[in-house]
Amino acid sequence: MDVAPVLVNGKWQKSESMGTFRAINPATQESLPVSYPVSSWYEIKKAITAGFNAAEKIAALQKETIAEFLENYALRIEKREDEIVAAAHIETALPSLPRLKEIELPRTINQLQIAAKAVRDRSWSRPTIDTATNIRSMYEPLGGPVIVFGPNNFPFAFNSVSGGDMAAAVAAGNTVIAKANTGHPATTRILAEEALKASLESGMPAASIQMIYRTDHADGKKMVSHRLVSAVAYTGSRSAGLELKEAAEKAGKPIYLELSSVNPVFFLPGAVAEKGPALAEEFVSSCLLGVGQFCTNPGIGVIVKGTDADNFVQKVVELFEAAPVGTLLGPKVYEGLLGAFVHLKAHGASLVTGGKSACSSGYCIKNTLFSVSGDGFIADPVGLQKEAFGNATLLVIAKNESQLPEIAASFEGNLTGSIYSHTEDRDERLYKVIQTILRKKVGRLLNDKMPTGVEVVPSMNHGGPFPAAGHPGFTAVGIPGSILRFAQLCCYDNIRHHRLPPELQDKNLTGSMWRLIDGAYTQEDI
Amino acid sequence: MDVAPVLVNGKWQKSESMGTFRAINPATQESLPVSYPVSSWYEIKKAITAGFNAAEKIAALQKETIAEFLENYALRIEKREDEIVAAAHIETALPSLPRLKEIELPRTINQLQIAAKAVRDRSWSRPTIDTATNIRSMYEPLGGPVIVFGPNNFPFAFNSVSGGDMAAAVAAGNTVIAKANTGHPATTRILAEEALKASLESGMPAASIQMIYRTDHADGKKMVSHRLVSAVAYTGSRSAGLELKEAAEKAGKPIYLELSSVNPVFFLPGAVAEKGPALAEEFVSSCLLGVGQFCTNPGIGVIVKGTDADNFVQKVVELFEAAPVGTLLGPKVYEGLLGAFVHLKAHGASLVTGGKSACSSGYCIKNTLFSVSGDGFIADPVGLQKEAFGNATLLVIAKNESQLPEIAASFEGNLTGSIYSHTEDRDERLYKVIQTILRKKVGRLLNDKMPTGVEVVPSMNHGGPFPAAGHPGFTAVGIPGSILRFAQLCCYDNIRHHRLPPELQDKNLTGSMWRLIDGAYTQEDI
Repeated sequence: MDVAPVLVNGKWQKSESMGTFRAINPATQESLPVSYPVSSWYEIKKAITAGFNAAEKIAALQKETIAEFLENYALRIEKREDEIVAAAHIETALPSLPRLKEIELPRTINQLQIAAKAVRDRSWSRPTIDTATNIRSMYEPLGGPVIVFGPNNFPFAFNSVSGGDMAAAVAAGNTVIAKANTGHPATTRILAEEALKASLESGMPAASIQMIYRTDHADGKKMVSHRLVSAVAYTGSRSAGLELKEAAEKAGKPIYLELSSVNPVFFLPGAVAEKGPALAEEFVSSCLLGVGQFCTNPGIGVIVKGTDADNFVQKVVELFEAAPVGTLLGPKVYEGLLGAFVHLKAHGASLVTGGKSACSSGYCIKNTLFSVSGDGFIADPVGLQKEAFGNATLLVIAKNESQLPEIAASFEGNLTGSIYSHTEDRDERLYKVIQTILRKKVGRLLNDKMPTGVEVVPSMNHGGPFPAAGHPGFTAVGIPGSILRFAQLCCYDNIRHHRLPPELQDKNLTGSMWRLIDGAYTQEDI
Repeated sequence: MDVAPVLVNGKWQKSESMGTFRAINPATQESLPVSYPVSSWYEIKKAITAGFNAAEKIAALQKETIAEFLENYALRIEKREDEIVAAAHIETALPSLPRLKEIELPRTINQLQIAAKAVRDRSWSRPTIDTATNIRSMYEPLGGPVIVFGPNNFPFAFNSVSGGDMAAAVAAGNTVIAKANTGHPATTRILAEEALKASLESGMPAASIQMIYRTDHADGKKMVSHRLVSAVAYTGSRSAGLELKEAAEKAGKPIYLELSSVNPVFFLPGAVAEKGPALAEEFVSSCLLGVGQFCTNPGIGVIVKGTDADNFVQKVVELFEAAPVGTLLGPKVYEGLLGAFVHLKAHGASLVTGGKSACSSGYCIKNTLFSVSGDGFIADPVGLQKEAFGNATLLVIAKNESQLPEIAASFEGNLTGSIYSHTEDRDERLYKVIQTILRKKVGRLLNDKMPTGVEVVPSMNHGGPFPAAGHPGFTAVGIPGSILRFAQLCCYDNIRHHRLPPELQDKNLTGSMWRLIDGAYTQEDI
């Protein structure tokens, strides 16, 4: 049988593979017809060398070429949207409408366009000039390929070949080697086809974007630590992420990870008294959005024991039971979720509803709710923070208000933390205590809002303290911040003026680029 | 015999030690009278807990308190300058005048004052606001103690208790646990005394700044990976640094390292023809500055074979031989330097002058020059980039101009790279090629200037690609950049206005703080 080609060194070519795999249609549990290769180390090395050489060529291009590439790529994705959406729907079981076609695909296109704009604007590179000493600095590309590992849950917006990490790495001026998520190889292949065409038509080196489907475990670690690789971006499971982290860091490679997160949501008593049923509805729709397969899915809700809480929980149970059961992304998510149930039970959580397979033809599990007392949670916070990735949530029932701070303090690093409080000041004192504790544990703090929406704006932080992410100072979503992950700080000390990068010369290159000159931000010339 | 106390939990106290050590006067090779403790794990844990608790207290203080602390500390250092300079001179053999008293101490005081200014100004925290989505973000303290390991070569400006890392970590709002360099414990002790007094008089928690002298190897690794530690800054030898890096990163702790660097200086043929003797003088004074014990010391010079080069080398030799021989920082540097000579010889370098001990009473080695052909360097670039920390330099003699790019490409990550070229455009073509290659390998690129001066300005980059530093995007010198290493990106999504940090509220808190609002930098209110 034919094996899909890989995109290496600017060409779609037969893989020098060491095995093959097939993707699975989660709605039918059947293997899809196409076989995809597991790349050999020989092939991976070829891609790394090609990516490194292409990065050198990009350094000599006008930045406009990179911006045009990103825009052409966005247009090309839009033109093939029906085909891309159809492929992703078959491979992920995510609904074509509205999710894939009307939400995720437009967001992906938008991200590429924002990245193009940032390339033209150049302010992301933070040009900094001190005229008295004639020292000037800015961020520049790392100068080698960035390896991007995409997750299973966003086949477009976080796809290794079209998502936020790819857009940021390219905007900085790097090349990308995308490691497709094995859950949606056909989707990734179509996107990669358009990436190659867009590269060629924009005048980017053909090897600017490369794509392979899979490596074996040991080769994955060798790849991220290879001498010519400049950085790594990884979104996925904690265990694989931590192994790659260790390998990359030992070799001195920056690696940006987005690992698991339970995204606690605190419901303070005043809010529950005021509008418990409405909060239950809001909570449940966030919990079950995308069958619970969001990085920012609220995996743990915290509430204080009492009649209001009883009513809230009862409402959540009703809604969980009434809501349709979605199909999970695939067998790994399905097995992982059932495994998480066993784990949570072993650590003292009680099953409230669901907890069982709901398979007829597809990978489905009943919408599942666990609960545990505040005492139980505090006694075993690590065990109970196991991410149950999918349509499952754990409620922590605190014995009283005074227990909430200790519960908050028991969380490890998370992407988000939300606090719902009374609309007037009834919860204010308690709120302050919780905010102070939670602030240090999460990348994004929310009020009266569920964490599942991630706006693509400069102020966004899609990141957080370890182990939610690998470094607490960087975001994976939001430009300019996300671009800086893939850039090197380059200082020019007494460099003759004509040898400076155009961004650092006296005249403001674009007329609108923001620069920090002698301590003040300005768009002026020197 | 009495053992010096440690500064733990806001008090000078008898150490619960597991051994002692004494510092050495490098000018006499004699042990100094005072014994210093090797802290036990029990004591280290006590310091970590106290540092964590103090960080929580700092979060509730006005930022003004931190600024006042830094300024009071600077003033207190100035008041005891004679005593501090005398202690450092005995422990390091660095000249009291001008180096310690007139250069390094004022720089240290200046750094603390700049940090205080940054605390008041608040622009370092990069407040970013998007009004349409009401998402706001900024950098905030990490929320735990930062462990600082200071190097041997700058007893004030990089001292773990008074140097740039300490100032940056405190400016961000963290606490510091300083691990004194064992070469200058008495100096560090005096500085720590003033740090404690300044903390108390400014209203900072007593445990804001703690200081221990030494740990055993295993405890050092446990310390940097402790749950309550928030980050680590390390300047020192590569081998110890890499071990701490591995331990810290495995635990998910950001660690910023400044490791060894050979700081290549390229002399292009036109420059050597034009002013060879003057360049030789400039080169030699940079090579021997501080007995060659600068992080940015030019450890390797590169020149093209020929008559001009012969004259240049001869002049360098003459100047090396004529220059007085300085005393090295101590026995470790002395032995390390002699060891580096053996290493360089084994890798094919030829001794041109020096290479031997020059001890009478102190730790001295003759000013030493090695040379190697371009072919030899390219054949074994890793072996020949061994840092010879001290008054020793390696000259690489390229066989012709065309060999320079390959030599440049053989360098690993460095803090700096310098290129001297003809004042007119005679070297321009060659220059461009070298700049392109070297740019990716160094944090700071220089023209017609030696790398040993490190200006404390926002545009400075004292960092570089691995292994010169641990991350290519951060600088250890220059505010605001250096502060960001010790901060966490904190996003506020839909947070009620009165609950926002003052920096993110609509009104510009200081009236002059720079904020990125809807994509434009401004000092205005919203």
